[in-house]
Formats: sequence, C-alpha cells, structure tokens
Amino acid sequence: MYKPLIILLALLVPALPLRAAQPDLIVYADYLLTMEAGAPVIEDAAVAISGDKILAVGSRAVIDGKYIAPKSISGRGRVVMPGLVNGHTHSSMTLFRGMVDDLELMTWLNEYIFPMEARFVTPEFVTTGTTLACWEMIRGGTTTFVDMYFYPDQIAAVVASCGLRAVVAAPHIDYPSPGFEGWDDSFAAAREFVQRWQGRHPRVTSAFAPHAPYTVAPEHLQATVEAAGQAGAPISMHLAEAPAETAFINTNYQTSPVQHVAGLGMYDRKLIAAHMVQLDSADIALTAEAGVGAIHNPTSNMKLGAGISPVPAMLAAGVNVGLGTDGAASNNDLDMWEELRLAALLHKVASGEPTTLPAQQALAMATRTGAAAIRLGDRIGQLKPGMQADLIQLDLSKTQHQPLYDVVSHLVYVLDASDVVTTVVAGQVLMEDRQVNTIDEAVLRSAVDKASGKIRAALAARDARS
Amino acid sequence: MYKPLIILLALLVPALPLRAAQPDLIVYADYLLTMEAGAPVIEDAAVAISGDKILAVGSRAVIDGKYIAPKSISGRGRVVMPGLVNGHTHSSMTLFRGMVDDLELMTWLNEYIFPMEARFVTPEFVTTGTTLACWEMIRGGTTTFVDMYFYPDQIAAVVASCGLRAVVAAPHIDYPSPGFEGWDDSFAAAREFVQRWQGRHPRVTSAFAPHAPYTVAPEHLQATVEAAGQAGAPISMHLAEAPAETAFINTNYQTSPVQHVAGLGMYDRKLIAAHMVQLDSADIALTAEAGVGAIHNPTSNMKLGAGISPVPAMLAAGVNVGLGTDGAASNNDLDMWEELRLAALLHKVASGEPTTLPAQQALAMATRTGAAAIRLGDRIGQLKPGMQADLIQLDLSKTQHQPLYDVVSHLVYVLDASDVVTTVVAGQVLMEDRQVNTIDEAVLRSAVDKASGKIRAALAARDARS
Repeated sequence: MYKPLIILLALLVPALPLRAAQPDLIVYADYLLTMEAGAPVIEDAAVAISGDKILAVGSRAVIDGKYIAPKSISGRGRVVMPGLVNGHTHSSMTLFRGMVDDLELMTWLNEYIFPMEARFVTPEFVTTGTTLACWEMIRGGTTTFVDMYFYPDQIAAVVASCGLRAVVAAPHIDYPSPGFEGWDDSFAAAREFVQRWQGRHPRVTSAFAPHAPYTVAPEHLQATVEAAGQAGAPISMHLAEAPAETAFINTNYQTSPVQHVAGLGMYDRKLIAAHMVQLDSADIALTAEAGVGAIHNPTSNMKLGAGISPVPAMLAAGVNVGLGTDGAASNNDLDMWEELRLAALLHKVASGEPTTLPAQQALAMATRTGAAAIRLGDRIGQLKPGMQADLIQLDLSKTQHQPLYDVVSHLVYVLDASDVVTTVVAGQVLMEDRQVNTIDEAVLRSAVDKASGKIRAALAARDARS
Repeated sequence: MYKPLIILLALLVPALPLRAAQPDLIVYADYLLTMEAGAPVIEDAAVAISGDKILAVGSRAVIDGKYIAPKSISGRGRVVMPGLVNGHTHSSMTLFRGMVDDLELMTWLNEYIFPMEARFVTPEFVTTGTTLACWEMIRGGTTTFVDMYFYPDQIAAVVASCGLRAVVAAPHIDYPSPGFEGWDDSFAAAREFVQRWQGRHPRVTSAFAPHAPYTVAPEHLQATVEAAGQAGAPISMHLAEAPAETAFINTNYQTSPVQHVAGLGMYDRKLIAAHMVQLDSADIALTAEAGVGAIHNPTSNMKLGAGISPVPAMLAAGVNVGLGTDGAASNNDLDMWEELRLAALLHKVASGEPTTLPAQQALAMATRTGAAAIRLGDRIGQLKPGMQADLIQLDLSKTQHQPLYDVVSHLVYVLDASDVVTTVVAGQVLMEDRQVNTIDEAVLRSAVDKASGKIRAALAARDARS
C-alpha cells in the first residue's frame, strides 16, 4: 500500500539540494581564531561539530547555508578558539593551594610539601583534588592537561567522568612516595598503569613519569626508556628546572641535565619535558633536533626563583614549546591565562625587547604549539575539520574589555579565566553560560572541605608546636 | 504641661548606657586586614564608618555590641581590606587599550601613541577615557590613583563625580602636546590647574607633572620645584624608567637620572617618582634619605622591556614603594591585582630567592606603603579609626578559591579584580554586589563606542595606506 509513496520519495531525492553530513552542535563567534599557523581572525564565524570532531569552520553565512544542528550556542560578543593546553600540572595539589608560600625552596619542600604529601595523599585525596582541578580548568578554558601525580588510576577516572582530555603520567622515583617504598614498586605500578589505560578511553593517554634526573638513577631512566618504547607511550618528566639540579648533574655526571637524559635515550622517546629553565645553546639545539616537547611554567619558575627559561631561543630553534601551570602549591591556581600573559611579559623584560614573544605566539604556545609539545598536535590545538572538537568561548563584551581594536591582544593582555563562558571537549559541552555541567559542585565542595579540614588541623598543630 | 515629663527624661539620661557616636555604615568581614604594620588578620570582624571616616575596627562582637548603623554590608565569605592605591596611571589611555602591542618602543611611541594622542586627545576624549578608567578601577577595588594626563580639569571633574580619590597631576613638557605648543603654555596651565583645585574638593589633590628628565630642561624642572614649593603641591614624574633615559642623562649631564633631578631640587619636594627601574645603590640611598615615593609598574616595565626595578633593595633601604598600572596602552588594563602578583613573582625570579617580596609585603605596597609613597599615608592605606573610609570587600568563597588556608596568600596569588564585590571611598559605597553605583554604564559605553570608532577608522586608514 505504501510502496508507491516510497518510490515517489526516492524519485524526489535527487531533486533536493545535496545535503552534507549534519552536525550535532554549531558554536558561533563574533571572532574566531583557528590557531592554524598564519591563520587570521575570522569575524562573524561558526564551528560545526559532529560527534567528537570538528566538521567545518568558516563564516557564519557559509556554515548556516550548509548546516543545520539540533543545538547551537550564540556567539554574540564572543570569541571562539581552541581550548587551552596545560602541559604540566599536578592536579591534586589544588588541595594544598596557598598552604604555605614565600619560603626558601628546601624549607618549603622538606618541612611542608613532602611531609603533607606523605601524611595526606590517598586515593580519596587524589580523586577530590583532581576533581577540584578539573572544575577549575573547565571554568578557565583549559581542555587538555598533562598530569603527574600519585594514584594515576584515580586521576584518569576523574578525567574520563568530567569530560576533559589528559595525558596522565604515573610517577616513579627512587625514594619512598605515597603508596610506594621506592623505585621497584613505583616503576612496576607505572608500567601496569600505562598498559591498563592504553586504548581504554579516547580522552585519556597513559604515560610514564620518572620524577627528575636528580631523583631517578641513570639505569632507572634507561628502564623507563625501554618500557616507554615497548608501550609506545609518552614520558613526562621534570627537566633542567633549577640551578641545584644543574649543579647535581654537573657534579655527578659532568654534563648538563639535558645531555644527561638524552644520553640515556630519553630524547629518542616521546618526551614531554617540564620547566626547561637551565639550558645552554647545545641543549636547545639537541632539544629541537630530537623533537622533544618543552613545557614552560612561568609562574612556578618565578615563584620558586628557578630562573628564566630561554623560551625565545627554543622557539627560534624550532622547539615545540607549550605552557603549564605546575601544581597549585607553586602557582597557586591553574589559570592558563596568567601563564600566557606572563610568558609574553617575562621574555620581553628578559630580552629588553618589546617585540619578543608577541601575543599571537603566546596564544600558540597555549594551543597549537603546546598540543604538539605534548604529542597531541594531530588531534587538538587548532580548529579545523577532522580535529577533535575541543574549543572555548570567551565573552569580550564587558565594559572592562572596551574598546576592542585587536582580539588577539585582548586574549593575551586583557581577558582572563573569568571571561570564559563555554568549554567544549570532544564535542561535549562541559560548561555553558559559565555553568559547569559535568561536576556536581556541592558534592565537590563538601569533599574539599573534608580533605582540607584535616590539613588545616595538621597546620594548626604544627604552628602550636613551633 | 510637659515640663515634668522633660525633667523626668533628663533625670533618666544618666541611667541609660553611654552611647558612642553612631556610624552610618557597618561593613562586615569573615577576614579583615587593617594593613597596619604587623597587624594580623582579624577573623569575624567589622568596620564602622561615620561620614567619610572610619569610626572603629574590630571583632564583629565588639562592633555590634557598641554600634548600630542604618546600613550594613554582609561579610559572609568575604575579606575586607583597604582599597588599592594605583600610584601611576594615565587614565584616559583606556581608549587606546590594545590599539597596538609588541612593537619596538620608538616605533610604538612615534608611529602610534604620539600621533594618535595629537589627533584624538580632546577634553571630551579625556572625560570619556577617565570615566572608563574609573569604572574599571571601582570594579577592581582601586580606590585612589595618581593620574598624569592632558586636560586635568576634566580628570578632576570625573574623579569628583564618580566618588574615587586621586592625585591629579597636570603635565608640562618642552614639546608640543594636546592643547599646548610647548613648555611655557603647558607650565602656566599646570600652575593654574594646581591653584584652581587646591582645597576645592576633599578627594582631589592637584599636582605638577613634569613629564621626564629627558623631555624637560633642567631650568624648567627648577621652575617646577619652585612652583610646587610655593603651592605646597606634590610632583609626579616619570623617572629612571629605561636604559635610553639613563644614556641620555649620562651623556648630557654626566650623572644618573635620580642624581640629576635631585640636584635640581626635586628630591626636596613631595616627589612621586614613577617607574624607578634604572637605579644604582647611591640612587637608592638618596631616594630613601629624601623620602621620595617610588612607584613600581611591573607590567609596563616588562611589556616595554624597560628592565627590572631594584624594588627589594629600595624596600630594604626604607623607600616607600607603591605600585602602579601605568596607562592601558602599555598594560593593557588597570588591574592592580595583576601588579601586586607580578611584583611578588618578578622579584623572586630576579633574586633567585623565593623568600623575596612575600605576599604581605606586596599587599602593603598596594595599600599602606603605596599610600605613603603618594603622600597620603596619613589619610588612606590602612583601616583604623580616623582614617578615610576607603575599603573593599572581596568574595573568597568561590570554588576556584578553595581550599583556604591563608587569606593573605589568596589575595596575592589567587584572587583578582573579578572577586571584588564592594568598593567604598570616603564612606560612599561606589560598588555593591558588583554593581557600580556612580557611573551610568550605558552612557559610558556609548561614549566609548563613539571615541573608539574614530580611532578604529584611523587605524584602518593607516593599514590601507601601508
């Protein structure tokens, strides 16, 4: 009975305009930065998203002419750009935010950070601290981060549930650490973690995290290189951070930290090297040649007095330099807008040259170059078809942003985390109109209060004794 | 008929509890920083305000036991502290915010800033730009600023109407400037301005502003010293800002910028010296001895590559060091929270020592020490009875602020302008619940759009030519 109708419809199909695959979501923008190299700002633009990927990017007129989506997000007074990539942090340390500051480095580490970690860091602590960090990152427009902290299974589980993307690196170190007696058990656990999470979740990349060249013996670093090679997994480590490390490596191995780990084969693996402050020109050339990603942490380096990383020289040599916040104990927040502004300002004063590290380059370090540095440059860091749909929207229309001549300048020198209104990762809207959708804020607050209450009591007891 | 009753009442008076003078406003706080030297944080506190002055500061229990006010502001989840003192800015330059960045200094000045000022700076421009700046400062918790820009009568009028407090310094310079041909007419106008505003308005201090030692001849600086001495007025000037200035003064006068102006008598007047980057130890000793106020502008110094001011050495020598944003062309906003965080971070990395410039000292520079630097230390910068009621409230309760162990650390390293909820100057509530009461935002936006539209058109025409 219905056959003729079906035949009729089938006949009609060629007469309809050719319809492209249709998106699930369209995000509009008064200004859109694809962050492709050399790509200008597109005014009155849109991004069409299908599933977890970007389907199309272009002018509003072109996108609207071609696509219809069941959901859209207004772009009025807003800029859209790739989500920020935080290349180095220790998420759980949000629970130590502002616990103690302005102390001499060894006092800070030995009398506060290490004892507090030994006493309080448990799987529950890591779940709560990572959730708080993820809430803060979603709110501030960070869509991908590289984490290095204890209990990485808990970290990966939080990442999976809250919708962010992360490289989760399991720490291993020659000393006792939460849950482990030393190298053997921490390294074995790291190998198991990397294997357990490989291919398990599309937004979680598991990785190795040997702590640093001064806390992990050469033969252990070689074992990491071998294991990472077998697993095809990246390695994230602290490298060339401070003068004390350089002195230690010089004394013990008669070379620089970079040459030391490169000589052990680490530069042949997918290394994500955090800090990279103490480098000479040979170190920079080697880093560029090996394609090692370097993560610049300006706030942490400044706050701990570690020195000024030779970022302009690394960029000039072709190193993929990303930006990171480091943990909230040495920052004291996970605000990538502060990092990119600081990077632009710090290297101008270090060089005495206002043309150093212009705004566009600082933004690239937080997006495209940063994504390349953490070995995800083929999937994130730019808005173009086929890339993962990781993007953010910022409100440029507040009175304190006026007037507006150059959106790139505003993103680096004027806007901040409080201006981010929308966060999308892999096509999922994690925050809309400044409301985080994927984390229950009341439950989080209650868990943070509980965890921090214990720390507060321990600090008070410590003060009472001293 | 009523006499016996009156007598009865008169007899009763001594039996009533002794009532203190009652306040007009009580502002509560979970945490209160008086910013008096060595004063700790007071928890669960309140400030009672009568007229334009602070009547009492103390615990909530004590204040509530003694005072009743017709209006109060809740302190739940909030910190109260003195309003911030922005010791050096050019307010109207908000209209050039982000116009052009990341250029070589002389290109930036000669091809953009100076021609745009010559073309667009009118009394109307200054009124609009200053109003925008005042809106931004009220929103961000700055209650007093030192301004140096053309058409100071317009600036003073905006300050008077919006409720802020300012030292308004009239510029004079040996070169043509908006409204003037050179030294003679600009200096004459400055003298008249200073006289016209002396004693005219309780929140406006008029001052002289010779531009800099490299743009004002020695005999003209001496004339300023004489005029300022006669008027009893402060002098605000750029001093020892950048290597080019030091080279110029060295070549022409065989001395340092500081020694040069001190030798002309400027150090004997109430000098507020902005930037103070290029100083040697003799300059620092002289500055301390003379009681000259030094205003540190970290963002501007970094962005323009001017160098790193020897702030810790100045503080150690006893110099009153304040903080300033400079203008929005070299910043690109008037956010004092960025300045105090940058000051803390910059001098740690410059010294290699994390104990340098601790959070409490950075806060003092933005309040008590800054107030002393601009010669208003007897009236503002601390919360204590008899001082002007200039104070702010910040919301510490947002999830991104959790946990809280140390309120001083959070103020410097975590909070920012978006966390300021209340701004009070001279007892008047300029902002409550983040709503600015004294400036019509819609009228302001319309004026900003009009002024910036002309600049945008000129930039577009310039780009089309090049």
